[in-house]
Amino acid sequence: MDLLDKKHLLAPGPVPVPPRALLAMAKPVMHHRLPEFSAILEKIREDLRYLFQTKGDVLFFASSGTGAMEACVANLFSPGEKVIVVRGGKFGERWGELAETYGLEPVYIDVTWGEAVSPETVAQTLEENPDAKGVLIQAHETSTGVKHPVAEIAALTREKDVLLVVDAISALGVYPLPFDELGIDAMVAGSQKSLALPPGLSFVALSEKAWARAEAGKSPRYYFDFRREKKALAKQTTAFTPAVSLLYGLSEVLSRIREVGLETLFAHYARLSGACRAGVKALGLELFAKEPCEALTIVRVPEGVDGARLMKLMREKYRVTMAGGQAKLKGKVVRIAHLGYQGPLDVITALATLEMALNELGHSVELGAGVAAAQKYFLKEAQK
Amino acid sequence: MDLLDKKHLLAPGPVPVPPRALLAMAKPVMHHRLPEFSAILEKIREDLRYLFQTKGDVLFFASSGTGAMEACVANLFSPGEKVIVVRGGKFGERWGELAETYGLEPVYIDVTWGEAVSPETVAQTLEENPDAKGVLIQAHETSTGVKHPVAEIAALTREKDVLLVVDAISALGVYPLPFDELGIDAMVAGSQKSLALPPGLSFVALSEKAWARAEAGKSPRYYFDFRREKKALAKQTTAFTPAVSLLYGLSEVLSRIREVGLETLFAHYARLSGACRAGVKALGLELFAKEPCEALTIVRVPEGVDGARLMKLMREKYRVTMAGGQAKLKGKVVRIAHLGYQGPLDVITALATLEMALNELGHSVELGAGVAAAQKYFLKEAQK
Repeated sequence: MDLLDKKHLLAPGPVPVPPRALLAMAKPVMHHRLPEFSAILEKIREDLRYLFQTKGDVLFFASSGTGAMEACVANLFSPGEKVIVVRGGKFGERWGELAETYGLEPVYIDVTWGEAVSPETVAQTLEENPDAKGVLIQAHETSTGVKHPVAEIAALTREKDVLLVVDAISALGVYPLPFDELGIDAMVAGSQKSLALPPGLSFVALSEKAWARAEAGKSPRYYFDFRREKKALAKQTTAFTPAVSLLYGLSEVLSRIREVGLETLFAHYARLSGACRAGVKALGLELFAKEPCEALTIVRVPEGVDGARLMKLMREKYRVTMAGGQAKLKGKVVRIAHLGYQGPLDVITALATLEMALNELGHSVELGAGVAAAQKYFLKEAQK
Repeated sequence: MDLLDKKHLLAPGPVPVPPRALLAMAKPVMHHRLPEFSAILEKIREDLRYLFQTKGDVLFFASSGTGAMEACVANLFSPGEKVIVVRGGKFGERWGELAETYGLEPVYIDVTWGEAVSPETVAQTLEENPDAKGVLIQAHETSTGVKHPVAEIAALTREKDVLLVVDAISALGVYPLPFDELGIDAMVAGSQKSLALPPGLSFVALSEKAWARAEAGKSPRYYFDFRREKKALAKQTTAFTPAVSLLYGLSEVLSRIREVGLETLFAHYARLSGACRAGVKALGLELFAKEPCEALTIVRVPEGVDGARLMKLMREKYRVTMAGGQAKLKGKVVRIAHLGYQGPLDVITALATLEMALNELGHSVELGAGVAAAQKYFLKEAQK
């Protein structure tokens, strides 16, 4: 029963959607070739430039984030070309699968899950592969919570004939990734993360270097053809039918982000993740990521606790949906996301639930201790 | 900004509304004289009998709860008639104001705020006033959190020519008040409490004894005329334009309540209020009510803390809206409601917020200690 069954969504996508966006998306659907809709697209176009911190156009597709990752591979590289793929988790593996699907020649940098790639390793791999046309990486690995050193890697690729392609699906709007300033060539994002919208929209920002490659690319592409979308956007429309209602929501959220400013958004995520990490440590639990990102906090399931049972208990009894581990981390970690329409009290909710559930499964932690550490963090932050 | 500004509503009305009810109320408005609407009314009529635990009709009005209180005074008594009014808080005072407005002669039983009336006092007052036509009381005083002994008082009035009129606005559906079994004569409720709907609907259940009085009553009444509504309801309609969308929501919520059963609803509120009281005590804070009800937990603001500042801090900084004290309790208590679309983690939210805010205002409480006591309560409950 809904009334006695309040749910809490703390997964790294989908995320809770703020009421204003829900209301915007509940507006009557309009036809996408009307001038009124073009005006919405034009506003979104401007706002996306602000969000991605770029002067160029940001393309968007009706697709999940993976669609935009595929678009990058299909548009920016040609069969037989060599690309360096950083694999430190499930989403690094996805870059590899896409590269192989399109007949590229991936050179893998395999990183231990839970660790970041070192810029030195990337530099060395670039040196060893002077014919590599791209580096495919995550801003952070959502499967491990680890942040990769994108700025340092961009400094390596910027002056070379190599495209740096960054999956920032759950990173955009969470911490600074100034596209033009860093000299990233392609950056992918999705609607169901810090944009706090339902899934269904993906985004790609592109550098001039990337555009030149997209024009010359030889892989087949139709729906995800960057050239087609760029031309359409210049005419204030889209190549194919856009996700009208999601774009209403996007327009609303982007307006709010411009109102408060990116810095405020970044500070918000730093605060939530900082408090959550403090809480996890106070419980004597281990953080999985060595270089943790601000989008989510990943906790190692303690020895002797069945990770699947833990997730099920939190989901079915406490109605709190966090995410479990993926692939080789299945059953080994709990992923608490801070993304979307959340505030400090959601961190409290996550920690209190984890405390109760661990105790129920026989792993004794001091009730309230994680919560108290997060509270202390929030109070200290408030005094700054 | 909505996105960075998640709000929590923990006041004793309005309350958070569950998504299913919000969606039901978002359905297109239909005309209220159509057969389809009559079918909805007939279903609501049956479901309200279940909720009030009565065989008779439960009337409903497009009004706040006060409208239905006024309706009781206007329909059930005539000018010059004597009524006994239990005044132990702001809502007891409201019965008195209504009685005076309609030219009744109220005999007041003034009870110290925070205490319940004793059945002996009511018995004695009835004896001293054999001409009294009614006893007007609250099931609990929402201003003080105190539960009055309605069952015991009903035993006094049941066999007499005296109507027991109970304001159960925030009590219906929270704990047992079986209307027919106890022999209550009129019981008032509102939509914005345990029914988890927006404000705008009020309800009155009536005994046969009450109906006889309503037929004979001499006070002016038109919109709130019980006789008119009863006739309309028998024809599966309403005397005046009903609040169509709120009734869609009501139908949805009543369906859910029938699905899970009243006992489950009562157990839910007992659990939330029990955990909240445990948390408050663990913080060394004082509960205001001696006989607390399950709808809300009222905490005395500690010495040296400015109650208005405390409420403002929780509302503006933590975005948690609890209720402050009313009338003579202004600034002296915090009222944490458990009503509506809430679960255990809202109790955690309330306690964590109170802990942080009290510390910020210089009243040191152990961070996490109230939360831990509530967690222990929930875990113990779970083992039952």
